[in-house]
Amino acid sequence: MKLIRFGEAGNEKPGVLLDSGKRIDVSGFGEDYTEAFFETDGLDRLKTWLSKEQDNCPEVSAVTRLGAPLVRPSKIVCIGLNYVSHAKETGMEVPKEPILFFKATSAIVGPNDDVIIPKGSEKTDWEVELAVVIGKKASYVSEAEALDYVAGYTLHNDYSERAFQIERAGQWVKGKSCDTFAPLGPFIATKDEIKDPNKLNLWLKLNGEELQNSNTSDFVFNVQQVVSYISQFMTLLPGDVISTGTPFGVGMGFKPPRYLKPGDVVELGIEGLGTSKQTAKAYSAIK
Amino acid sequence: MKLIRFGEAGNEKPGVLLDSGKRIDVSGFGEDYTEAFFETDGLDRLKTWLSKEQDNCPEVSAVTRLGAPLVRPSKIVCIGLNYVSHAKETGMEVPKEPILFFKATSAIVGPNDDVIIPKGSEKTDWEVELAVVIGKKASYVSEAEALDYVAGYTLHNDYSERAFQIERAGQWVKGKSCDTFAPLGPFIATKDEIKDPNKLNLWLKLNGEELQNSNTSDFVFNVQQVVSYISQFMTLLPGDVISTGTPFGVGMGFKPPRYLKPGDVVELGIEGLGTSKQTAKAYSAIK
Repeated sequence: MKLIRFGEAGNEKPGVLLDSGKRIDVSGFGEDYTEAFFETDGLDRLKTWLSKEQDNCPEVSAVTRLGAPLVRPSKIVCIGLNYVSHAKETGMEVPKEPILFFKATSAIVGPNDDVIIPKGSEKTDWEVELAVVIGKKASYVSEAEALDYVAGYTLHNDYSERAFQIERAGQWVKGKSCDTFAPLGPFIATKDEIKDPNKLNLWLKLNGEELQNSNTSDFVFNVQQVVSYISQFMTLLPGDVISTGTPFGVGMGFKPPRYLKPGDVVELGIEGLGTSKQTAKAYSAIK
Repeated sequence: MKLIRFGEAGNEKPGVLLDSGKRIDVSGFGEDYTEAFFETDGLDRLKTWLSKEQDNCPEVSAVTRLGAPLVRPSKIVCIGLNYVSHAKETGMEVPKEPILFFKATSAIVGPNDDVIIPKGSEKTDWEVELAVVIGKKASYVSEAEALDYVAGYTLHNDYSERAFQIERAGQWVKGKSCDTFAPLGPFIATKDEIKDPNKLNLWLKLNGEELQNSNTSDFVFNVQQVVSYISQFMTLLPGDVISTGTPFGVGMGFKPPRYLKPGDVVELGIEGLGTSKQTAKAYSAIK
């Protein structure tokens, strides 16, 4: 099953993307994709409901805006330097255990919304990432059972302002949390749709030029390992998002570095998880 | 006005602590202290409602458990090393601009709930802090207008596992986000109750021995500065919590360091914001 949310920002409704490519409105099910939805076996209940009601669901036009495919979760936990090739390009060591940081959930937007270059930013950068959506409360789970706690997967562009992240005092969160820095989607593919999350191609293009192209098989720590690892330090709640890190090819890795300018178009995708596309705008252009 | 929430964990109801010390149940108002409550001038609406309904509100017994005084917010943003004296004891430099980090909101508990020493922890430490509760959406606000965006203040113990925070790879969030590491309350005092948030005594005792005793006048960056500063990097949402850092006297600052053992009792307080008290328990004792 592929979960989508559609409509105006802040007023999205839940939907499903069918294998035929048709999008349907499942508002009739009566629940949005919230923590409570995932916690109460919403995926199974929705599937059962659809088996009877699918033909009665209104179609959603292909031009309707998509929102992030879930309601704002309690947290976005990100893994730093989780591809061997990306750790090398940033000049940092391959980590011996996962590096964790958070991204503000207020940064979440729809997959094709504009990315706003923050005031004073000169180093807004891209990061195509596989994001994991948690399906049930996870605390101290083992690697062997980790996938039992996963609801599905989605595409994430972990936008990062490198000066805010690295050159300003302290912790990375400062460069990771600007509004619009977390486009999620187009959809959440439920776990059954993805044969092996640790063997997926992913890519990113800037103005048509391919800058990232890798495979999650280059992970330093795979999905099972990161879910288990994070759960040793905090409880993951249903709907929580884990962004698993980005491969080689971010702007800061180029010599000289390349960063976003207003008008730039970023397109990205992951095998089985669709594609998204953001146009960069200056903050001054939207206010 | 002093907002409380009371009842069993996960099923708290909203209440108000009157100046007489009496606690009343304001469930009749029909709203809990959520993002939407703060966003829609809930404080003013509640005050108006109380002016008519206060005498009809049921009393809450003094032995009823208190929960955190607001529903789980979108984020807890913490300021690192924000007292001159604390920066010195950790051996770090006084920061030139605020250091930001996040704490998982899944760590929030009531003010007098047990603090659970995580599995494998040997360095669970305390930090009495003034927490600011945001009243309306704040993005790029100036220092001069920053207090307009504040709903009120509450007491926070920013528990920290120092090995997880500092000795494990990467970012501080790993040692800040364990379950029970964010006791909030006893109450939120609305802004009008606190004459100057930058001039409040605060203290913490371990088993009756006073280990922290300072005043927010020792802030490196005051409340107005941190609200304004954070809003340059991300949007603060109504209900969001900013924890403003801790003064001298944390466990890691002692020679040799002192950390929590099961059975230890931590009491803390801030002038005008009441007191809280947590008993340390081993993770193994609760499972």
